[in-house]
Amino acid sequence: MPSDPSDLDTGLDAGLLSPVRAGTRAEAATGDRAWLQAMLDAEAALARAQARLGIIPGEAAEAIAAAADADRIDLPALARRARGAGNPVVPLVKDLRALAGAAGEHVHRGATSQDIVDTAAMLVADRTRRVILADLNTALDALAGHAERHRDTPMAGRTLGRQALPVTFGLKAAGWLLGLLEARDRLAAVALPAQLGGAAGTLDAYGDRALDLAAAFAAETGLARPDLPWHTRRTPVAELGAALALVAGALGKIATDVAVLAQSEIDEVAEAAGPGRGGSSAMPHKRNPALAVLIRSAALQVPAQAQILLAAQAAPLERPAGEWHAEWQPLRECLRLAGGAAATAAELLPGLEVRPDRMRANLDGLLAVLADHGGPAGTGAASALVDRALATYRKSPA
Amino acid sequence: MPSDPSDLDTGLDAGLLSPVRAGTRAEAATGDRAWLQAMLDAEAALARAQARLGIIPGEAAEAIAAAADADRIDLPALARRARGAGNPVVPLVKDLRALAGAAGEHVHRGATSQDIVDTAAMLVADRTRRVILADLNTALDALAGHAERHRDTPMAGRTLGRQALPVTFGLKAAGWLLGLLEARDRLAAVALPAQLGGAAGTLDAYGDRALDLAAAFAAETGLARPDLPWHTRRTPVAELGAALALVAGALGKIATDVAVLAQSEIDEVAEAAGPGRGGSSAMPHKRNPALAVLIRSAALQVPAQAQILLAAQAAPLERPAGEWHAEWQPLRECLRLAGGAAATAAELLPGLEVRPDRMRANLDGLLAVLADHGGPAGTGAASALVDRALATYRKSPA
Amino acid sequence: MPSDPSDLDTGLDAGLLSPVRAGTRAEAATGDRAWLQAMLDAEAALARAQARLGIIPGEAAEAIAAAADADRIDLPALARRARGAGNPVVPLVKDLRALAGAAGEHVHRGATSQDIVDTAAMLVADRTRRVILADLNTALDALAGHAERHRDTPMAGRTLGRQALPVTFGLKAAGWLLGLLEARDRLAAVALPAQLGGAAGTLDAYGDRALDLAAAFAAETGLARPDLPWHTRRTPVAELGAALALVAGALGKIATDVAVLAQSEIDEVAEAAGPGRGGSSAMPHKRNPALAVLIRSAALQVPAQAQILLAAQAAPLERPAGEWHAEWQPLRECLRLAGGAAATAAELLPGLEVRPDRMRANLDGLLAVLADHGGPAGTGAASALVDRALATYRKSPA
Amino acid sequence: MPSDPSDLDTGLDAGLLSPVRAGTRAEAATGDRAWLQAMLDAEAALARAQARLGIIPGEAAEAIAAAADADRIDLPALARRARGAGNPVVPLVKDLRALAGAAGEHVHRGATSQDIVDTAAMLVADRTRRVILADLNTALDALAGHAERHRDTPMAGRTLGRQALPVTFGLKAAGWLLGLLEARDRLAAVALPAQLGGAAGTLDAYGDRALDLAAAFAAETGLARPDLPWHTRRTPVAELGAALALVAGALGKIATDVAVLAQSEIDEVAEAAGPGRGGSSAMPHKRNPALAVLIRSAALQVPAQAQILLAAQAAPLERPAGEWHAEWQPLRECLRLAGGAAATAAELLPGLEVRPDRMRANLDGLLAVLADHGGPAGTGAASALVDRALATYRKSPA
Repeated sequence: MPSDPSDLDTGLDAGLLSPVRAGTRAEAATGDRAWLQAMLDAEAALARAQARLGIIPGEAAEAIAAAADADRIDLPALARRARGAGNPVVPLVKDLRALAGAAGEHVHRGATSQDIVDTAAMLVADRTRRVILADLNTALDALAGHAERHRDTPMAGRTLGRQALPVTFGLKAAGWLLGLLEARDRLAAVALPAQLGGAAGTLDAYGDRALDLAAAFAAETGLARPDLPWHTRRTPVAELGAALALVAGALGKIATDVAVLAQSEIDEVAEAAGPGRGGSSAMPHKRNPALAVLIRSAALQVPAQAQILLAAQAAPLERPAGEWHAEWQPLRECLRLAGGAAATAAELLPGLEVRPDRMRANLDGLLAVLADHGGPAGTGAASALVDRALATYRKSPA
Repeated sequence: MPSDPSDLDTGLDAGLLSPVRAGTRAEAATGDRAWLQAMLDAEAALARAQARLGIIPGEAAEAIAAAADADRIDLPALARRARGAGNPVVPLVKDLRALAGAAGEHVHRGATSQDIVDTAAMLVADRTRRVILADLNTALDALAGHAERHRDTPMAGRTLGRQALPVTFGLKAAGWLLGLLEARDRLAAVALPAQLGGAAGTLDAYGDRALDLAAAFAAETGLARPDLPWHTRRTPVAELGAALALVAGALGKIATDVAVLAQSEIDEVAEAAGPGRGGSSAMPHKRNPALAVLIRSAALQVPAQAQILLAAQAAPLERPAGEWHAEWQPLRECLRLAGGAAATAAELLPGLEVRPDRMRANLDGLLAVLADHGGPAGTGAASALVDRALATYRKSPA
Repeated sequence: MPSDPSDLDTGLDAGLLSPVRAGTRAEAATGDRAWLQAMLDAEAALARAQARLGIIPGEAAEAIAAAADADRIDLPALARRARGAGNPVVPLVKDLRALAGAAGEHVHRGATSQDIVDTAAMLVADRTRRVILADLNTALDALAGHAERHRDTPMAGRTLGRQALPVTFGLKAAGWLLGLLEARDRLAAVALPAQLGGAAGTLDAYGDRALDLAAAFAAETGLARPDLPWHTRRTPVAELGAALALVAGALGKIATDVAVLAQSEIDEVAEAAGPGRGGSSAMPHKRNPALAVLIRSAALQVPAQAQILLAAQAAPLERPAGEWHAEWQPLRECLRLAGGAAATAAELLPGLEVRPDRMRANLDGLLAVLADHGGPAGTGAASALVDRALATYRKSPA
Repeated sequence: MPSDPSDLDTGLDAGLLSPVRAGTRAEAATGDRAWLQAMLDAEAALARAQARLGIIPGEAAEAIAAAADADRIDLPALARRARGAGNPVVPLVKDLRALAGAAGEHVHRGATSQDIVDTAAMLVADRTRRVILADLNTALDALAGHAERHRDTPMAGRTLGRQALPVTFGLKAAGWLLGLLEARDRLAAVALPAQLGGAAGTLDAYGDRALDLAAAFAAETGLARPDLPWHTRRTPVAELGAALALVAGALGKIATDVAVLAQSEIDEVAEAAGPGRGGSSAMPHKRNPALAVLIRSAALQVPAQAQILLAAQAAPLERPAGEWHAEWQPLRECLRLAGGAAATAAELLPGLEVRPDRMRANLDGLLAVLADHGGPAGTGAASALVDRALATYRKSPA
């Protein structure tokens, strides 16, 4: 039951201001519809878990699960109705009860809004993380390829923007590889727990089946089972934000190097050419590092979004008056910006054009200066360091 | 020419995670469609200004203006096509040229993508600011009413959470009033300039009519005329972000006080009751300060969004590789979160229920303690301070 | 009465990790000793204002003012004793009372800790701002000189790191000039009010002389007189943080451009050479843009510090349990980082070496490309824009 | 060789504005002197590692280690001299060479400034982390004691500030316990690697002993051995910042709850009384939650400091022009604010006064309301959840 079409096109954010994630799988996985479906999935999982324990009839759980379909909910209207209670679950439960017919009375039993929103956030995070990890693995493979191919390709190393000493492109790629590997492993390790605590975190509505139900609920969602409800113990959200900032930072480092090396006067790398790629509205002669720019646009935003999540930890009592609500949009931004940056890196890196001849030409000037100063001119242990980074990568499980 | 419907409901953000602005006029004024229309308005203004100076034919300008209609553009597809150049103007110009028919060749003449995106951002900011200021004025009037009505209503003042000395509710409302007044005036004073510089900021394509065209363009848009193009002199964006953070902070102060005073054990204010207001999905006995919570959710986010804008100032040369692109979404968030908070305050404050009896009851305990310590028990100059704040408000032009 | 010397060298921050402000006047104006003296100045001003109104004897005020000398206070010990009350004023008042002898009973009469800390913060801000504005004026003059001298010096304009179209170095310097001018004027316009409210902001201890005393106190401090105490209406602090972030941003823009243009492969500007300048511990052949690096180090920190100030606005009731205390160190960092950046810019800009020959050489390649594309190759209205910026600067009062 | 005393007291930060860490061991471990000593320790470790491999004579290493004493360096002067190169190592190496006499020529051989600063930062982090972990363990033990003692102590649970349903104080303490445990384990797990790469990260000065030397250097410092130099792969710093923000957040959550529960109208907990504790400069009758306020002051700052570290990851090439330099002070602030908060929590929590009678009195009103609504009034699975949290804590290695 969609809203009036004129509603649909007013306040929407379809990615126009965020091309780094426009059209990516991470965007689809984090959109309002995905979040709505995850909330419905949480309600369905609760019903199934309760049916498994005999708290509600099995057919009620089936009816609830069948009704829990985002396409049957008027999303923009739901967003507005969320203003009444401060969160979308109160009106959503009303809608779901109506959709579930006779089973409606069994919807949301004993749960609180935060159980549903938090579980949905973890489901969205889990689904988006899969997408991100896949893109990171593509990027990592490409980086390993560059490191291997250019293990011994010399180029000028630059500190504070000035040519310093020779390095190799392989060493640079190996540094990118390790940084992204560390960030990937950090993201992969974040625990994503289900949330079930009831109104005040005591699971009071479930009697002596409370702990069993919490376990069954986590199992139904596929998420981790926490020791305790985490209504205001926000480690999962804060850790996730930090991990996504690490991912964005590792990708941002790569993109920054690409953009700097792609400057006209350095010109040592270039993004793969293609129709509609890197063009300018005013200057047909230009070829811009457009994908690197997109990645950087994300890397410059994610730390601030993550900070909101880190700051929201210090919130009072059983549910705070704002800190929790302030998490939702920044968490989504962390996921979709990091995800968009990962997708963009998976597009950029395999096709990155590396130019050993330009590297050589730029290096020659430096070598002449160094010779004047009688300084060293080799690439030291660069190649051995590349080998070591590749070995670390290869023994790291994807 | 809308996208396939299945596209429409993937990555969209319709406010589900941001109820503070869901359905508000600020949301509509800052949505992707509004931004798209503003970009088209910028192109139309450029054409009209060029026609005015005889650079292009008058009928071409009319045709371009007629074609510059957001409903004729496939927005989600445009967002994706923006990935090629890193910004949406390159594909948009292509679409607009097609829509403008024979006049197409006159579209975007001599301009660069950033001219259009920046001018559009200022148009969006200008339109949204009107909405915000109207809501702030409603909130200010309500605050002045509270200050006047409760000029002499005593209550306990509380520092570090502990009862300290008597104050008046009028003084508290007067403090809210002045803070919001300062923030409103700051926002109203931010200059919002048009942007026209051409590819490198020299207006090179316009020959000796360059400065006249820049003036005519600003006039057509209704925005301020800057001395120089500001492609990487980002004062307008940074100032706007800071001003919106001041607005969010002033509103956040009020909402925080409301939430704290509405605690069960204090209970001195309450939000107006109403259908669907302040309810809980788990606890029918509760009445929550839901609007204050919404406002706080915004106040906790805007400073971090503004920080991205402040940090983006330090960007290289004629157009940076990411810092500019990183501004768009945070600027939108500043506008729509501050706007949503203003709309919510305009809803909250006129109906705020103030309870002098509860204030008196809570105060009595404090007065007894103070009497034991032989301390003062009056409200000092509170009433005179209220008068002063009201006088300042009344002589301040709306 | 200094602490044991072994105390002095434990936790101190003498600028080792912040060379951008090490040894600058802004550092001295914002150090703990300066803050301590400003707190004592606030106590002395309060005593003098009270004497002026006959609240305390004139000789008591004189005795208090004479005792209010930071050199007589054990600062590190005071910092530790501040932990008891959560702020340094409680132990400071005790010390000052002891130092003032018979006048001790008149110290701090009717005031609250926050009156003293906030007034001291504004005094420190006022004194530091003078220093910053002087350095900014030096920088502005240097920029105007560069703009004038290089009004017609052509160079390549670069967008997204790629050569785009010709600009002039004068236009670039004019953009720097206007940005810094806007930031300077914004900082100069921030109101810095005295704070006097007493324990709960009602000035309750002063009877019917309360408003007169507040005015006299402001006059004695030399600060602005606020309409109301601003214990939790934090506009002054938030505005100051935002203005300092604008200054840091405008300086950061300049420093970023300098660092980018000083890259080996571009080499169009260089910092003035000098003993101990721009050296490397490992590479004697290098000459680094060390001052630009220092300025950038500040520009990358100030927005986050300012954000803490912006976020601290949303704090409860008459004094919050932490938000106020969280302001002090970030406010100091904003002042001394922006101040250090200003001092460094005043050192960098007058001596900046501009190399028209290198600009010409780099530009020639671009002109060749543009000729191939049949595109424009002039600098458009650059020179006229420089004239306009210089005119704006010249009519702007220092 | 100390500076002139008048220098010592100008720009110094002795903790006056940061009482949360004034006088704590974390402050001493992170002060400029500690950082300076760590830089000297890094130089000494390099010399010893080189002696071990026969690169320099053993007696030279001994002489260098003996000279590497912070008390022999004029720290404020060093801070100022750091401006020349943009970092303190260039002048420090000069001083150390002079102090080492004949061995001076072997100082800093083949290293770059960043090797020393980064290794010193990790040494400081390692030393400060020990202190922090010890304080966290004290806090954790106290929390476990509260959870156990109050396993079955009922109290009102509060959501959005309103009484919701009964909980237990034990459950609240168990939530604090788990949150802090997770943060402690995260901090403990952060890898702190030595840094040795030479001017461009290739270890070029060390020939075929490069990798052996890197390993020996790490062993001498006691830090982890990284696969590759991490000059611009800033995972260690970013991870450390994120982990410290988690610690500050977990402590901030506890302190926020304490401050809220200590409000006059709730009054269910109080900080231990003591001389000079919780006093007010204006109101002798007040007893403030001063330690909770201090902890909150840190929790409100650390996320923004950590964000600077997260954002600094996206930095160009072999050494960035500012991003690296911008890390130093925020990293220190993360360490000393989190450390100060941990020390304060270790002081607060063992003595926290818990008042079951006040909890009961506040709860009675809620139970009456719930009875009217026929709702549940038990504490559900709270006690079982406490047991589970305690079991998790007890099996977690300190």
